[in-house]
Amino acid sequence: MNKLYRNNRVTKEELLVDETIYSQANGFLGTRGTFIEGYGEDFEYNQTYLNGFYDKYNYFYEENLFGFPQMGQKLVNLIDGQKIIFLVEGIPLNINNCEVISLIREYDLEKGLTIRKIHYRTKQNYEFILTERKLVSTKIKELIAVEVLLESINYNGTITVKSYLEESIKKHLENDPRLYGGENQSLNIVGISKKDSFITVKTLRSNLIVHTKMIHNTLFKTSVVNQKIIAEKEYLISPKKGIKLDKYLIYTSSLYHENYLKKSEEISKKVAEISFEKLIEKQKNYYNDFWKKLEIKIPNNKYLELLINYNIYQLNSSGGESEYHNISAKGLSGEGYEGHYFWDTEIYMIPFFILTNPLKARNLLMYRFHTMEQARVEARNLGYDKGVKFPWRTINGEEASPYYPAGSAQFHINSDIAYTIIKYFEATNDLDFIIRYGFEMLVETARFLKEAVNFNGQYYHLNGVTGPDEYTTVVDDNYYTNQLLKYHFEYVETLYGKYTQELSEVIKKIKLIEDEVLCFKEIAKKIYLPFDENLNIFIQDASFLNKKKLDLTKIPSNKFPLLMHFHPLFLYKHQVLKQADTMLSMMLLDYDNEKILNDSFDYYESITTHDSSLSKCVYSILAFKLKKYDLANDFFENVLETDLLNSQKNTSHGLHVANMGGSYIGFVYGIVGLRIKENYLVLNPLSTEKISSYELNVQYKGKNVNIIAEKKLIITTKETVKLKVYGKEIKLNGRYQTTLKKTTVFNFSKK
Amino acid sequence: MNKLYRNNRVTKEELLVDETIYSQANGFLGTRGTFIEGYGEDFEYNQTYLNGFYDKYNYFYEENLFGFPQMGQKLVNLIDGQKIIFLVEGIPLNINNCEVISLIREYDLEKGLTIRKIHYRTKQNYEFILTERKLVSTKIKELIAVEVLLESINYNGTITVKSYLEESIKKHLENDPRLYGGENQSLNIVGISKKDSFITVKTLRSNLIVHTKMIHNTLFKTSVVNQKIIAEKEYLISPKKGIKLDKYLIYTSSLYHENYLKKSEEISKKVAEISFEKLIEKQKNYYNDFWKKLEIKIPNNKYLELLINYNIYQLNSSGGESEYHNISAKGLSGEGYEGHYFWDTEIYMIPFFILTNPLKARNLLMYRFHTMEQARVEARNLGYDKGVKFPWRTINGEEASPYYPAGSAQFHINSDIAYTIIKYFEATNDLDFIIRYGFEMLVETARFLKEAVNFNGQYYHLNGVTGPDEYTTVVDDNYYTNQLLKYHFEYVETLYGKYTQELSEVIKKIKLIEDEVLCFKEIAKKIYLPFDENLNIFIQDASFLNKKKLDLTKIPSNKFPLLMHFHPLFLYKHQVLKQADTMLSMMLLDYDNEKILNDSFDYYESITTHDSSLSKCVYSILAFKLKKYDLANDFFENVLETDLLNSQKNTSHGLHVANMGGSYIGFVYGIVGLRIKENYLVLNPLSTEKISSYELNVQYKGKNVNIIAEKKLIITTKETVKLKVYGKEIKLNGRYQTTLKKTTVFNFSKK
Repeated sequence: MNKLYRNNRVTKEELLVDETIYSQANGFLGTRGTFIEGYGEDFEYNQTYLNGFYDKYNYFYEENLFGFPQMGQKLVNLIDGQKIIFLVEGIPLNINNCEVISLIREYDLEKGLTIRKIHYRTKQNYEFILTERKLVSTKIKELIAVEVLLESINYNGTITVKSYLEESIKKHLENDPRLYGGENQSLNIVGISKKDSFITVKTLRSNLIVHTKMIHNTLFKTSVVNQKIIAEKEYLISPKKGIKLDKYLIYTSSLYHENYLKKSEEISKKVAEISFEKLIEKQKNYYNDFWKKLEIKIPNNKYLELLINYNIYQLNSSGGESEYHNISAKGLSGEGYEGHYFWDTEIYMIPFFILTNPLKARNLLMYRFHTMEQARVEARNLGYDKGVKFPWRTINGEEASPYYPAGSAQFHINSDIAYTIIKYFEATNDLDFIIRYGFEMLVETARFLKEAVNFNGQYYHLNGVTGPDEYTTVVDDNYYTNQLLKYHFEYVETLYGKYTQELSEVIKKIKLIEDEVLCFKEIAKKIYLPFDENLNIFIQDASFLNKKKLDLTKIPSNKFPLLMHFHPLFLYKHQVLKQADTMLSMMLLDYDNEKILNDSFDYYESITTHDSSLSKCVYSILAFKLKKYDLANDFFENVLETDLLNSQKNTSHGLHVANMGGSYIGFVYGIVGLRIKENYLVLNPLSTEKISSYELNVQYKGKNVNIIAEKKLIITTKETVKLKVYGKEIKLNGRYQTTLKKTTVFNFSKK
Repeated sequence: MNKLYRNNRVTKEELLVDETIYSQANGFLGTRGTFIEGYGEDFEYNQTYLNGFYDKYNYFYEENLFGFPQMGQKLVNLIDGQKIIFLVEGIPLNINNCEVISLIREYDLEKGLTIRKIHYRTKQNYEFILTERKLVSTKIKELIAVEVLLESINYNGTITVKSYLEESIKKHLENDPRLYGGENQSLNIVGISKKDSFITVKTLRSNLIVHTKMIHNTLFKTSVVNQKIIAEKEYLISPKKGIKLDKYLIYTSSLYHENYLKKSEEISKKVAEISFEKLIEKQKNYYNDFWKKLEIKIPNNKYLELLINYNIYQLNSSGGESEYHNISAKGLSGEGYEGHYFWDTEIYMIPFFILTNPLKARNLLMYRFHTMEQARVEARNLGYDKGVKFPWRTINGEEASPYYPAGSAQFHINSDIAYTIIKYFEATNDLDFIIRYGFEMLVETARFLKEAVNFNGQYYHLNGVTGPDEYTTVVDDNYYTNQLLKYHFEYVETLYGKYTQELSEVIKKIKLIEDEVLCFKEIAKKIYLPFDENLNIFIQDASFLNKKKLDLTKIPSNKFPLLMHFHPLFLYKHQVLKQADTMLSMMLLDYDNEKILNDSFDYYESITTHDSSLSKCVYSILAFKLKKYDLANDFFENVLETDLLNSQKNTSHGLHVANMGGSYIGFVYGIVGLRIKENYLVLNPLSTEKISSYELNVQYKGKNVNIIAEKKLIITTKETVKLKVYGKEIKLNGRYQTTLKKTTVFNFSKK
């Protein structure tokens, strides 16, 4: 597999983007790809995170209305240990003080390692090459390891090396609603040891502790200055003799470890024995197994192959390792959206895990189960006596959205979670999960929605909610929301009817009676789904078509994303979309009236800005289905390139992890034509000009399905799996070969 | 006329309410009815304001979207000089240290004076009677004068008197969205003089200066301690010899005076010559003239007479004295709504001034003209290229509403102002105003709305706006807004057609062409007015009837006002009203289809909470029109009693000044059946059981109309005035007498 190189990118903007691109994580611990020697500039801000390690802070509202969340939550930027400075004649080597002759950056996806080689020339014309190799261990989840090699080209003399363990001070602030705007300070230092080189900190309000220990492979003189631990040493360096240094950082926490001090000691002892090379070997073993199952091979297009696998790699690193934490919108790669978990997980990320690593999918859904009580409180807060309302954004399960129109008003989150529980169950047959957790969640989320609908004698309506598209808020009968609710409510009845026996205990526990189930069924039957006969499309919401269309061609490109340049009242009263809404429900539910699908697609696509990174993958999948291959491929490539081209202009805030899930489903649903169904796995693989051959594996009902598209389509299983290939149902145990469907029209408008 | 007495009210809640009730103002300067000796308690907070004297502060949003106002504005609590403490054996006399044997408070509306007499008994059983008389001068607008008399019942000895000039430190804070929640500090002391006893302060951000000088009628030893000026003196007191002291406070400001120092000196010299008795005499003269014109006499109901005249008195004191300031929601009586000006002025207050003091009405409208540039900026901010959008709440003309759904989204403010310009013109024939200012405002406000409407081939729609009722926000086709827009747009065409010649200069200035006027006409003709055939009512907005009704009878009384107990999303999705909305437009435009009016009234009245104080006066007027006398009278009495009974539970924040205007129009429109029309003044006076006789004067076309309802209805004018009395048009110059219409059914549910 290819490695990801990005060289000679040294402007501030490039550096901040590449910090994200070269970020590393293992689901628990993550850190950004900053330079270990720093930049010597104002925008230095090292960021290391533990999944779920957050603090609370007070929200402030100029008009504080009833029910507004009073506390915010943010992922905490931990104690930083990744600064090692090299003083040459008293001046630190960095991009601010030196000329950069070259900079080579590599992400080795097979080894789980980043490598950076930078060639500096000082003002005194001394030249050095600094090589940094860094990994966040997949084997020892608490460990970040760095190896630095400093080579001199033409300098003979002493160099002072200072290695730090300290609080990371935020130096750059942006005014962007998608970034946290409040106070910075969240940590109190509660322990610091020069002798043992550790700092223990406690969050101010959530009372969580993280203990960070620094270990070097060589002896330093250590001191504590202003709450920082500084390890210092003088080296003699010459063109013949460089400086090599390993630094290990161990993060243990009250969040994960019963005894974080003891655990830290254990790991210290363990890692003292392990060389950096040995750690790389362990990484390699992990990723060897990983890629064996998950790699998507595209022999004829190594560029796209690298992109998609990079995205899979980062998505996998972002979380799903535990039942008690989820995956934030930016994974563990940055501070965007304060590290909050959204519906992104269920709708964009979990499908990847369902098809590749169902245990992680289950973990992520279990996180919701463990936060049911907070969701119950929120349901009451919103004025309803029954059920639960999951938060729009959260870390600890409490609603943390301070702007309800594009927050708490998104009642669809309940059915999004329900939808994904259903898909998980269809793909895995994990009835144990349904019995113990899933059914209860399906019913409690439905109960809340049942309270919220309104019967007008003919239809049930859901008034005053926001759909996925955030350029239209607080409307009546959002089609997406109602359609997902219908699917959700119907499935409650299905499960209730089919597994009455198995579910008897939970039915008793949650006091579910047949009447209530019939009521769900009745609502599902009569929920209003706005449709326009003339346009032959489903309508985004009851009043959507009454609005003025916004001529997107007349808006200059520097006015996008629109939310940064137009008042919400202006956006809300126009027919303009931030992201797929009606079309998303059609994608999720595999809507099959081709004419309506096509007309709806054309209508909405023309008014969608894709200002959200959650949009293009959806349009891509549907465009493939509708044989709009040109458009489909454009969208698909855009999705794959989102972070690498910084096309949302905010990759510096962190990776668009949901979009990475989107790039997986873009491939699997769009090109492979896969759909998860209860009775079989649907496959309609395409061969496109750009992607004419590929290979991947997916999991279905606990079994591996290998799909190879080359000249022929070859599907292989080792156990019996029911499939529906190009519309034909088969029970496969072994190898199935058929003609590969090739797309005919294909004109690339890009590249 | 009666005086307002409220005695022996000494709980914290009563004291805070009575501070508002006994507040005094002269349109420029206002102060609350605190005790000059203080309470010796935590809730002490003296408040004195100058109309329009405000500071800015930064707004903070957890999600800061484009176009949100970035600066707040607040009326500044000025340097306070109303503290005089009396130390008896070192202990201050106040309610905290003493027993209150009696407390008598009087508002003398004929003298413009408050009198408070409190009988204290100390822990040592010494008894004193403190009498405080206070006035805010109507003659010298910069002056507050206080006279204190301390009498001893049984104490012989020395008393130390300390009189202060100091910053007023806020000691009580409430968590209420209707109060300012942000930072307190707004003033820097830039000058302080022990010798001349003054403190000069400057606001932190708006750079306004106020200079406060303290004068006593006796010699004190003065010192400056911690930025306070303390004037101190020892007195010998005995049952035979009390202490009498006058204290004058002079407020001059860069806001009003070219040279505030010189002005302060001038006034100082002037007032040094004037005794407190002399000041009272001047007050008396002013109010003598005032009541001659404005008093509403209700011989058979002195209670209601006092209430309505008290309301008129306070409304008149609240502002309208200058073109550059307006009247805040709480006048100059408290900090509610941060001293902001709202549509309250145009819709609820100006009608009073139009009918009693048209110059003040003109001043208030001129304030809008002087803030047109700020309104133009706001129009651009909202995304529109043309016209102006007046702010929902402001002091300096800039939009200061941090919560747009119940703020900037209220586009109706533009037509509210237009409506009042029209009514002003109809009542006064002030064509000069129209030519120089009014027409330009009518057109510029219309231009903004013209950009905002959307033609769907049949009707014009106005999407995504909020009407007057704030329990429903950001909806399509709010009936009130569209109906007022129609009236507004039609009138632009009327004026354009009728006064083409007179308006030629302004037409050129604002580049108005005939096509644009025709476009206004076309929009007026085709603006959508939602109507329901089954219910035979106009619909509050396009989607209103689709919502669930909220059963108000099932909500316990402690859950009102609903906004303090329910999430906005819950309120917004129900059919429940904070205040009159559709009915308000029917009242303003004198809608005359009785069946539709009646059905609409019944429908909306049953779902209105009147959680806003702007509601009941409207329902009262319409109920009188619809001959629902019982209900009408209940509402009318509630309106009159709003502040005196603290029925909105927040009179402590300040007077409900709009409601005071509402009590005037409640009487004049409701009982006298007055309507302002271009060609005549409509009068349909009623005699009710509770109000069987009354007398009042109103101004129409610059002429006085005296109306006496007793056994007969007698109308008298001194010049020719066109009237329409009980449907009959008459030209009256002299006396007109006819039978007074008596209401037949009248069952009081209250009192």
